[in-house]
Amino acid sequence: TRTIKLAVIPGDGIGPEVIEQANRVIDAVTAGGDVTIERTEFLLGADRFLATGETLPEIEQAAIASHDAILFGAVGGVPGDERLRSANIERGLLLKLRFDFEHYANVRPCVLYPGVESKLADPGVVDFVVVREGTEGPYVGNGGRLRPGTPAEVATEVSVNTAFGVERVVRYAFETAMARPRKKLTWVHKTNVLVHAGATWQRVVEAVGAEYPEIAVDYMHVDAATIHMVQNPAQFDVLVTDNLFGDILTDLAGAIGGGIGLAASGNINPDGAYPSMFEPVHGSAPDIAGQQLADPTAAILSAGLMLDHLGLAGEAERLRAAVRADRASNGAAPRSTSAVGDAIIAQIPPRG
Amino acid sequence: TRTIKLAVIPGDGIGPEVIEQANRVIDAVTAGGDVTIERTEFLLGADRFLATGETLPEIEQAAIASHDAILFGAVGGVPGDERLRSANIERGLLLKLRFDFEHYANVRPCVLYPGVESKLADPGVVDFVVVREGTEGPYVGNGGRLRPGTPAEVATEVSVNTAFGVERVVRYAFETAMARPRKKLTWVHKTNVLVHAGATWQRVVEAVGAEYPEIAVDYMHVDAATIHMVQNPAQFDVLVTDNLFGDILTDLAGAIGGGIGLAASGNINPDGAYPSMFEPVHGSAPDIAGQQLADPTAAILSAGLMLDHLGLAGEAERLRAAVRADRASNGAAPRSTSAVGDAIIAQIPPRG
Ligand SMILES: CC(C)[C@H](C(=O)O)[C@@H](O)C(=O)O
Ligand SMILES: CC(C)[C@H](C(=O)O)[C@@H](O)C(=O)O
Repeated sequence: TRTIKLAVIPGDGIGPEVIEQANRVIDAVTAGGDVTIERTEFLLGADRFLATGETLPEIEQAAIASHDAILFGAVGGVPGDERLRSANIERGLLLKLRFDFEHYANVRPCVLYPGVESKLADPGVVDFVVVREGTEGPYVGNGGRLRPGTPAEVATEVSVNTAFGVERVVRYAFETAMARPRKKLTWVHKTNVLVHAGATWQRVVEAVGAEYPEIAVDYMHVDAATIHMVQNPAQFDVLVTDNLFGDILTDLAGAIGGGIGLAASGNINPDGAYPSMFEPVHGSAPDIAGQQLADPTAAILSAGLMLDHLGLAGEAERLRAAVRADRASNGAAPRSTSAVGDAIIAQIPPRG
Repeated sequence: TRTIKLAVIPGDGIGPEVIEQANRVIDAVTAGGDVTIERTEFLLGADRFLATGETLPEIEQAAIASHDAILFGAVGGVPGDERLRSANIERGLLLKLRFDFEHYANVRPCVLYPGVESKLADPGVVDFVVVREGTEGPYVGNGGRLRPGTPAEVATEVSVNTAFGVERVVRYAFETAMARPRKKLTWVHKTNVLVHAGATWQRVVEAVGAEYPEIAVDYMHVDAATIHMVQNPAQFDVLVTDNLFGDILTDLAGAIGGGIGLAASGNINPDGAYPSMFEPVHGSAPDIAGQQLADPTAAILSAGLMLDHLGLAGEAERLRAAVRADRASNGAAPRSTSAVGDAIIAQIPPRG
C-alpha cells in the first residue's frame, strides 16, 4: 500500500470547516483502495499571526516541502483589522508558497453542473479550464513607494514576464488542451496596451503553438474576454493568461459557473520538484465563519484535482461523480457545511 | 447664439457609421436651441495609417486641441493585419489623446434600460457609474523587453501611480457620488497583492474621503468585484479604480448592462485645459463594418455625456429620454444602424 503524505493548511475563517469536509471525502473515496493518507496539519494564517506574530516560519515551510501535496483552505482575517495591516498574510503565506514551490500552473476548471443555477440567463454548456500563470507577472511584488504620505508620493508595481516563465505555463496549457476533446486554446492578455509583456506572450504562444498544430488557438484582450465570458461562456475550452488577468477571470468564471462555492483550483508544480497545492478559489469569509454556512464543495473539488495530480484518477472521477449527483438532486438549497459533506459522501459510487 | 467647436474622429470599422448617427442625434436635439455646432473631421486611425503611415501628426493634434470637445468613434484595423503590427494605433492615437489631454476621469455609466434584455437572469435595477483613472497606472507604457526573441527574454511593465494622479480622480469620483442620490462609493484595487500602488490608493481614498462624510465608502478587490457585478450589480452606485482595472470592469459592466452596444464613455479633463473626448466603449468591429449592422446607441449616449459636459443638461436629458423610449418600444430587435438613429430621433421629446 502506497502512503501519501498530505500537508493540510486549514487557514482562517471558513477554511477549517470546508477542509474538514474535504478530508472526510478524501478518506471516503480512497477507502478500500491501496492508498494510505498520512496528514500533517499546519496552523498558519491570520489567526496564527495574531497569536504568535509568525506568518510562515522557515522550518514549517521546509516541513511542508517534504509532503506529497498540500490541501489549503483559505487565509485572511477580518477586513479592516488594524492588527493585520502590516502583516499581508496573502503575500507572506499563500503567494510565498506559490512562488517558492514553483506553482507555475494555476489550474482552475469552470464547469456548470446540471442542477446548478447560473447567474446567467442562458449560459449553455459551460466546461472550460483557465490555466493561470502562478509565479510572475504583476504578482512578483517588485516596485515600491517613493515619498510615501506626501503629495509627491509615487508608487510603482513592476510586472516581470520571462520567456522561461511564460513558456512553461503556455506549454502546460497546450498539453491541457491536447487532453481534452475540443482542442482549443484561448490566450488572453492586453497586447495593445501592455506592449512589452504582450510581445513576449505573443512570441511564446506562437512558438509553442507551432509544436501543436492540432490545437486551434485564438486570442482575446482581457477586457473583451469578460464580455465573451458573460455572453457565451460555452465557447471556451482552455484559457491561458498571466497571473493578474487569471486572478480576475477565474473569479468571474466562478460567478458564472454556478458560484464561487463550486470553484476549485490547483497550484501545480508540474515538474514535481515541490508539492502542488490545492485550494478553493473562495476566500476565508470571516463573516460566516464557524457557523457551518459555507459550501465545502469548492474545497472538495479541489481535493479531486489533488487526487488527479497524485495519479488517483479513478478516485478523482468518483469524487466528481458524487458532486455531480449531489448537485443534480439537491441543487442550491441551503444546507450546512457538514450536510453537504454527508450528502456527497453518500453519493460516492462504488469502486469498479 | 453660442458656437460649439466639435472635433470629430470617426475612426475605423463601424466608427464612421455610429458617429454619423450620433451627429444626427446631436443636431436634432440641439435644433431650436441657441447653440450652433461647428464640426471639423479628423481622419485618423488604422485606415489613415495604412494610407499615409501617419498615426497622429502634431499639427492635427494641435488642431484638435483647439476644439471644445471631441467625438470619437473607434479605432483599430482587422485583427492580425501584419501591416499594423508595428503601428499600435491604440497607443499612438487613442491613449496619446487621453494622456496628452489629461483625460484623468474616464467616466462610464452602466444603466440597464427598461426593455433591454440583460445576460443576467436576475439583474435587478442596474444604475452605476465607473470612474476609471485615465492617465497613469499600467497604461503609462513604461517598461521594456530585454533580450527579445531569446530564451532569456524578460519583459517588464511598470505601473506608475502618483498621489497627484490618484487624488484628482478619486476627488472627481467623490464629487460624482455627491451628485447622485445614493451617495455611495466603491473603490476597487488589489491591495493584498499590489501592495505599493494599493497603499497609495488606500491612503488617498481615506484622506479625500474624510472631506466627504456624507459618502459611504467601501472597498473591493478587483477579482471579488467581478463576482459582485455578476451576482448583485444593483448594489453599485459609483466605482473608482485604476486604468487597467477600470478597462476590465467597464467591459464587464457593459456586458451586464444590456450589452456593449449601449456602453457610453467620456474621457473627461475636468479642469477644462483640454477638450474632453466622448466615445463608445466598443471597438471598431471590422468584421461587421460598412454593413449598417452596428448599434449606434453607445455612440449616441456618449454624445449625451458630451452635451452634459458642455453644459447642455436639458439637451442631454432629452437625448437619454429618447434612447429610453426607443429601447422600451423596440427592445433588442435587430435594426440597421440608421434605423436606430431614425427611431431615436423620432423619440426626442419637445423642448420645454
Ligand atoms: C488571496 C489572493 C492573494 C489570491 C490571489 O490574488 O491570487 C486569491 O485572490 C486567489 O485567486 O487565489
Ligand atoms: C482600445 C484600448 C486601448 C482601450 C483601453 O484599453 O482603454 C479600450 O479597451 C477602452 O476601454 O477604451
